[in-house]
Amino acid sequence: MSSEDCLGWAARDVSGHLSPYKFNRRAVGDDDVYVKITHCGICYADIAWTRNKLGDSKYPVVPGHEIAGIVSKVGSNVKRFSVGDHVGVGTYVNSCRDCEYCDDGLEHQCSKGVFTFNGVDSDGTITKGGYSNFIVVHERYCFKIPKSYPLASAAPLLCAGITVYSPMIRYKMNEQPGKSLGVIGLGGLGHMAVKFGKAFGLNVTVFSTSISKKDEALNLLGADNFVISSDQDQMKGLTKTLDFIIDTASGDHPYDPYMALLKTFGILVAVGAGTEIKFSPRSLFFGLRSISGSIVGGTKDIRDMIDLCVEKEIYPKIEVIPIEYCNEAIERVIKSDVKYRFVIDIENSLK
Amino acid sequence: MSSEDCLGWAARDVSGHLSPYKFNRRAVGDDDVYVKITHCGICYADIAWTRNKLGDSKYPVVPGHEIAGIVSKVGSNVKRFSVGDHVGVGTYVNSCRDCEYCDDGLEHQCSKGVFTFNGVDSDGTITKGGYSNFIVVHERYCFKIPKSYPLASAAPLLCAGITVYSPMIRYKMNEQPGKSLGVIGLGGLGHMAVKFGKAFGLNVTVFSTSISKKDEALNLLGADNFVISSDQDQMKGLTKTLDFIIDTASGDHPYDPYMALLKTFGILVAVGAGTEIKFSPRSLFFGLRSISGSIVGGTKDIRDMIDLCVEKEIYPKIEVIPIEYCNEAIERVIKSDVKYRFVIDIENSLK
Repeated sequence: MSSEDCLGWAARDVSGHLSPYKFNRRAVGDDDVYVKITHCGICYADIAWTRNKLGDSKYPVVPGHEIAGIVSKVGSNVKRFSVGDHVGVGTYVNSCRDCEYCDDGLEHQCSKGVFTFNGVDSDGTITKGGYSNFIVVHERYCFKIPKSYPLASAAPLLCAGITVYSPMIRYKMNEQPGKSLGVIGLGGLGHMAVKFGKAFGLNVTVFSTSISKKDEALNLLGADNFVISSDQDQMKGLTKTLDFIIDTASGDHPYDPYMALLKTFGILVAVGAGTEIKFSPRSLFFGLRSISGSIVGGTKDIRDMIDLCVEKEIYPKIEVIPIEYCNEAIERVIKSDVKYRFVIDIENSLK
Repeated sequence: MSSEDCLGWAARDVSGHLSPYKFNRRAVGDDDVYVKITHCGICYADIAWTRNKLGDSKYPVVPGHEIAGIVSKVGSNVKRFSVGDHVGVGTYVNSCRDCEYCDDGLEHQCSKGVFTFNGVDSDGTITKGGYSNFIVVHERYCFKIPKSYPLASAAPLLCAGITVYSPMIRYKMNEQPGKSLGVIGLGGLGHMAVKFGKAFGLNVTVFSTSISKKDEALNLLGADNFVISSDQDQMKGLTKTLDFIIDTASGDHPYDPYMALLKTFGILVAVGAGTEIKFSPRSLFFGLRSISGSIVGGTKDIRDMIDLCVEKEIYPKIEVIPIEYCNEAIERVIKSDVKYRFVIDIENSLK
């Protein structure tokens, strides 16, 4: 097998403007799977790297790490997948496969982990993401999606979904029905945290800056409680009532008012944040509280999450768009004007 | 039984200057123990409240919550103690005794917990601490000290000791020999963290700003490694090598350089801090790290800690002083000029 022309959309400079771009993928190796991409979610990371927010963008940048598609070819050693399988590819496409983290299914913690786009792969090439019509990836970083589960819905699980699912499992929220979870921010990540929280039997309170999200939070997503975070009376009324908080807010914001809502031994997990996290030591000391961080998740958690989503019929709420709309969609993501994740219909629009 | 004149030393105003002061303790109730105080450790909290650093001091303030002594009277219902027993009294002298926290031996988390000094007790009186010749306390907040264990050494266990022991147990450091512990700051708390860490079989690295503490850290306390925290090469060499950090530093300091030393899933527990804790979100995200806080500990942990100290012959390193020296000692505590805890010889000097 040899490399082929791949058609994608790329940003050429810090403007981040995306437009068609042709490039080569590697040939399908013995352990590789060739995935014909049908859908790709739009994640805030796509904006960060197409616009060089972290200073390490390697243009042209083809973004996208919430990838869903159909296996079209497999290498000779591939055991897990067959042609025709529906699969997902997430935020990592390589790692050393030989360290303590890889051994534990925590490949995203491997020091040689390679991001799905704008990463430097083991052969020195710069990885290119899912705003493209196919990808070639080692089978380890590929996840089977049962055919009963829509590929468009599967795409956002691979980053937004796993980013909140993974810490929820780490802190055993799935084993403690009846406990209380706060979710700060109701976007791509937050709405999945609400759905997982309800699937785990938690009592879920959503904190938002916008009253416009109240009805959907309660009636569509099934949250038990909705709080406008600027309403000090409502916030005070919740003092020491929450076991967990998942903080998906992506900008700088105060932490002390939320820490005060945690019970003794309560944990706030930041999965979004601004430039700095700061709070009073008293917020930690007097309730023996913790603050933790998390980012995406390893292959084991991803497989378990997909199983859960299939079994419990948990679907991200998405807005499917053609690739031609991606620049406008990105502007809307920046304005939080999406309920709750854009998914690009690659199959039908990228030609 | 009726109340008696108690002789203590008190601060009268924000100068914090301590001088002799007579006051009444309550009569010994049915559940109370009357403890003739022999020793009291000097804790930074004594300074905070004698000098009204927190704005809530109720003068005269008789400080001291690292209390050791001998039972001289017991109430009719007291079951755990007899006259002549050696005992300790720590940072709390009351709580509701009927909430989930009290039920779990976490009385310091009870919303009705009463500090040993400058607290408002359930009868409305302001509690007065261990810089005094006796104390009357409900037996629940009293801890037996075996007679083989010196009372002078027992005193600092009741605050400095438990403050580091309790989170070490919470994070199961006692069940993971061979794991690595960093201890920031080598004072009253830090030197106990080193001793407990070694008793648990951990590999202990001390971080200090002062090279003068190196020899004692390694040769007296048994630490495995000593690092000057301003030495960036040494710090970088330890990147991602520590499982735990106990941070006893009492002033504002950067957190990111220490967070970077934690392995994936590593935890930093702050038991000292300045006015604010702040760090980059990346310090949490990329290693799935946590930062937690802790303050003193409940009655269950205190009893377990005393058992451990007796069994393993763990003794705080102390400088015993007469009460007349307490004002000077407090100045030295502020300058960190003590190895590692002052203990007032109440029995022989407060008359």
